[in-house]
Amino acid sequence: MQDGEIRVDFQKVIAVATKRGIFQPAFDAYGGLAGFLDYGPVGVRMRRRILEMWRKHYVINAGCLELDGALIGPESMFQASGHLGEFDDALVDCKECGKQFRADHLVDGGEEMSRTELAKKIINISCPSCSSPLSEMSAFNLMFSTSVGAGKGSPGYLRPETAQSIFLAFPWLLRQNRGKLPFAGAQIGRSFRNEISPRQGPLRMREFTQMEVEHFFLPTNEPSLTMELRNTKITLLSADGKESQTTVGQAFDEEVVTSSLVANHLARAQNFLISIGVPPGKLRFRQHGSNEMAHYSSDCWDGEINTSLGWVEIVGVAHRGDYDLSAHGNASSREFRVPIPGTEKEIELWKPDIGKLGKEFKGDAKLILEAIKNVELKPNTSLNINGKDIVLSEDYMSQKTERRSEMVYPNVVEPSFGLDRILYCLLESSWNIDGEREWISLPQDTSPYDLLVAPLMTKDGLDTKAHEIMKSAIDIGIDAYYDEAGSIGRRYARADEIGIFYSMTIDHQTLEDGTVTLRERDSKNQSRVSLEDALNQVRR
Amino acid sequence: MQDGEIRVDFQKVIAVATKRGIFQPAFDAYGGLAGFLDYGPVGVRMRRRILEMWRKHYVINAGCLELDGALIGPESMFQASGHLGEFDDALVDCKECGKQFRADHLVDGGEEMSRTELAKKIINISCPSCSSPLSEMSAFNLMFSTSVGAGKGSPGYLRPETAQSIFLAFPWLLRQNRGKLPFAGAQIGRSFRNEISPRQGPLRMREFTQMEVEHFFLPTNEPSLTMELRNTKITLLSADGKESQTTVGQAFDEEVVTSSLVANHLARAQNFLISIGVPPGKLRFRQHGSNEMAHYSSDCWDGEINTSLGWVEIVGVAHRGDYDLSAHGNASSREFRVPIPGTEKEIELWKPDIGKLGKEFKGDAKLILEAIKNVELKPNTSLNINGKDIVLSEDYMSQKTERRSEMVYPNVVEPSFGLDRILYCLLESSWNIDGEREWISLPQDTSPYDLLVAPLMTKDGLDTKAHEIMKSAIDIGIDAYYDEAGSIGRRYARADEIGIFYSMTIDHQTLEDGTVTLRERDSKNQSRVSLEDALNQVRR
Repeated sequence: MQDGEIRVDFQKVIAVATKRGIFQPAFDAYGGLAGFLDYGPVGVRMRRRILEMWRKHYVINAGCLELDGALIGPESMFQASGHLGEFDDALVDCKECGKQFRADHLVDGGEEMSRTELAKKIINISCPSCSSPLSEMSAFNLMFSTSVGAGKGSPGYLRPETAQSIFLAFPWLLRQNRGKLPFAGAQIGRSFRNEISPRQGPLRMREFTQMEVEHFFLPTNEPSLTMELRNTKITLLSADGKESQTTVGQAFDEEVVTSSLVANHLARAQNFLISIGVPPGKLRFRQHGSNEMAHYSSDCWDGEINTSLGWVEIVGVAHRGDYDLSAHGNASSREFRVPIPGTEKEIELWKPDIGKLGKEFKGDAKLILEAIKNVELKPNTSLNINGKDIVLSEDYMSQKTERRSEMVYPNVVEPSFGLDRILYCLLESSWNIDGEREWISLPQDTSPYDLLVAPLMTKDGLDTKAHEIMKSAIDIGIDAYYDEAGSIGRRYARADEIGIFYSMTIDHQTLEDGTVTLRERDSKNQSRVSLEDALNQVRR
Repeated sequence: MQDGEIRVDFQKVIAVATKRGIFQPAFDAYGGLAGFLDYGPVGVRMRRRILEMWRKHYVINAGCLELDGALIGPESMFQASGHLGEFDDALVDCKECGKQFRADHLVDGGEEMSRTELAKKIINISCPSCSSPLSEMSAFNLMFSTSVGAGKGSPGYLRPETAQSIFLAFPWLLRQNRGKLPFAGAQIGRSFRNEISPRQGPLRMREFTQMEVEHFFLPTNEPSLTMELRNTKITLLSADGKESQTTVGQAFDEEVVTSSLVANHLARAQNFLISIGVPPGKLRFRQHGSNEMAHYSSDCWDGEINTSLGWVEIVGVAHRGDYDLSAHGNASSREFRVPIPGTEKEIELWKPDIGKLGKEFKGDAKLILEAIKNVELKPNTSLNINGKDIVLSEDYMSQKTERRSEMVYPNVVEPSFGLDRILYCLLESSWNIDGEREWISLPQDTSPYDLLVAPLMTKDGLDTKAHEIMKSAIDIGIDAYYDEAGSIGRRYARADEIGIFYSMTIDHQTLEDGTVTLRERDSKNQSRVSLEDALNQVRR
């Protein structure tokens, strides 16, 4: 069986996912709501194990500072981040049947076109559903909006990416890191995009789970590509259409990847994806073209898996520059810049004499102090307070020496993973077929259960013994699943279908000598071993 | 120090939480948005450990089927669940200053009053802010609303409780459990309530995290109170105002608690809460009065912790009857009932003859089949199809024998935990003061870190050694925190402030003989032990 081979199609994965409690379309009982899924008992376990592996890679081992931010945010924040103005899709609707479409989905190659090009092409296209003429193209913002508070309330939006929470929390996280750079913030959480045409189950959802890292650094001191990561083998498809099997080190040396930290994160993203079971032969990193690249991004790569539906993006690694921090720094009341080391020097500053101001200006003194916060104070500064012009002479201030540094906005490199897509792609790419047998062959770390516990029959105390063994297994941290229904063959088949890593059979001999039969999922090898040895082998 | 003693106030907890990266008000940089929090690196770790303990109790050990449902849901669902009609607060606003208030917060004892009583009292009250007259009372729905899809879209709401996802997924979960009852669904996730006046940080939030279990059972076969749980000591405050120190078994025998499964879950909820560090002396379960009880609930208890702000509810245990399943069964297209065992019998049914219908009625046959889905078919059934009256004679049907059972809606008991409140109450109730020393004394399982690793100084290779030890600790699953800044005393104090369970100091002797100093947080006991012994002691 080839590593790159496609062995199962979308419909089959979706059918098994629904049947076996991995995921199902949400709200089917009420006619459905496209773009939303429920994850069931098996799906939640798989998601949690992927998340655990991700936390191990990024939070525990790499020391990222984890955040869990609010999902609803105020308008002012999304105004600053650019999401209110620019985060939209081009929409056309049918004047006759009322159906709505994404313009770029109706035009060949539309997803790579600029809006102007797209507008030109869409004129010649009629409704795919009823062939009537379509409306002109309009911009549809992809954020879900709501209202916070009673009455009219204030406008709020569901976040379209977890990233903004991390950017906005940057000053707080920086304090947690005692002011030191570089450091990385990480977040696992829900994001929302009001897609015009959600489809393909977990591949284009309106509500989805992201795992994002924002790696902050001084622009003059970008973290270098580490020696351990240089030799990581990687497949790159650069913007000029050239595909190369190379190493991350070579790609950086040859300036195919221009940022050392982007190179670093390409290698780390790949290492993580392989550790959870993505076959390296199905993985490539594709560089964004200039039309496709977000306005803020200078070097941007999508990690893609080859599936029955074509290449699917599961991670994006982007150099976002200082776009986000400077946007929030300019629009909000907080300092998002950091001092540049080595630029500290003494400067003379004029400071207001609060006592004298109070004596002279009484109630207006407070307003004066407020007004001079935002100007550089010097003798004879003129202010307008409550319609009155006031000139502050040297009498109301004194000179002080302070140590000040030049300030700069940190830059950021972001690896951003989509959990829902990763789970789907893992199911598909780990699908195995051997004659009549079909099974999911994920690594133990991302299998939903470590162990199936199966009594040969439910009499003679075999089931009681099996329950005892379940308890011992769980007590030492083994995720075990109990199944006593039907023939052993049937139970193995069911365990295979969701990829349970080991199966243990309890029979009459177990009661006599304490041995069990342990079966390994991928090889089907069975061995008769003591219970203790079996549990030690299964334990992760 | 007494178990029930209050040792710290709200302001101090909030100040330390912000300073140390536990949580902070979200969106402060944009003027704030009341009712939303960011959790920082230390807070996320504490939350995750509480969630892990909860999963261990309810999902791993008790075998609940875990679900992760969508946060946005369609209008029809919330119409059925009653949230669209009845999930509201009584709102009054000031005609002069425009401020809005919850009516029940302005009237003494308002929270216990019926709406009619409240309406009578509120007339005499003026605006607490500007003393002007208030508006009449109006109902304000607490769900956040949004619109799903382009253009006008269809109305959607952010779920006000995770419970509804589990109820709606009941038929799917039942299939995962192979049709067997009892079983329990569990869910951890975000919920949203558009509170009129959010306040008190994590205690009344607009966006919060719930951990809910829905335990389904046949009304004729309610799970009994198990022997292991009967002797659980518990403090109950019943609706008649009587407080008793009793056991769960006794409370059930004396019909203070009337449902055996509610009794079961009171004991289990208490066991869970104690395991994460809630002092038993600060915990009581208070029965809802009849005014306060949700419309669906017949036996409802709140687990409350005594804090500096009074008693705070952190868990509710409610018997919800068949309210939710029957609501969804009646309003949606799915079967939410289950067969009653032992009621199976053979019945004669008339089935349509599809071939004959097709021949006779051509295109209308499909509509006829659709129409008879919802009626009990018998000879000479009359139907109205496209405005025409059609009578189906015996010729178009045949009689068949089927085995059918009587059907019934399962009942449900729900323990529902609020993670944000639990974390706040844990911080407060585990606060310790001894002279100048203050520390959080949570059990190791819910401390944010197991271990502080601290080199005595950052020279002579002590820091290198400390980094090596960090790596070994993390490799064996110890959550370790590295700190090299300031005196050892300062570092111990910082570790105490967030409740790190052990501290390890690396000094020159470590380099010579491989021993370290291990300090236990609560006793401050220090011992000189080998690195291996230290790591074994720290490992959970």
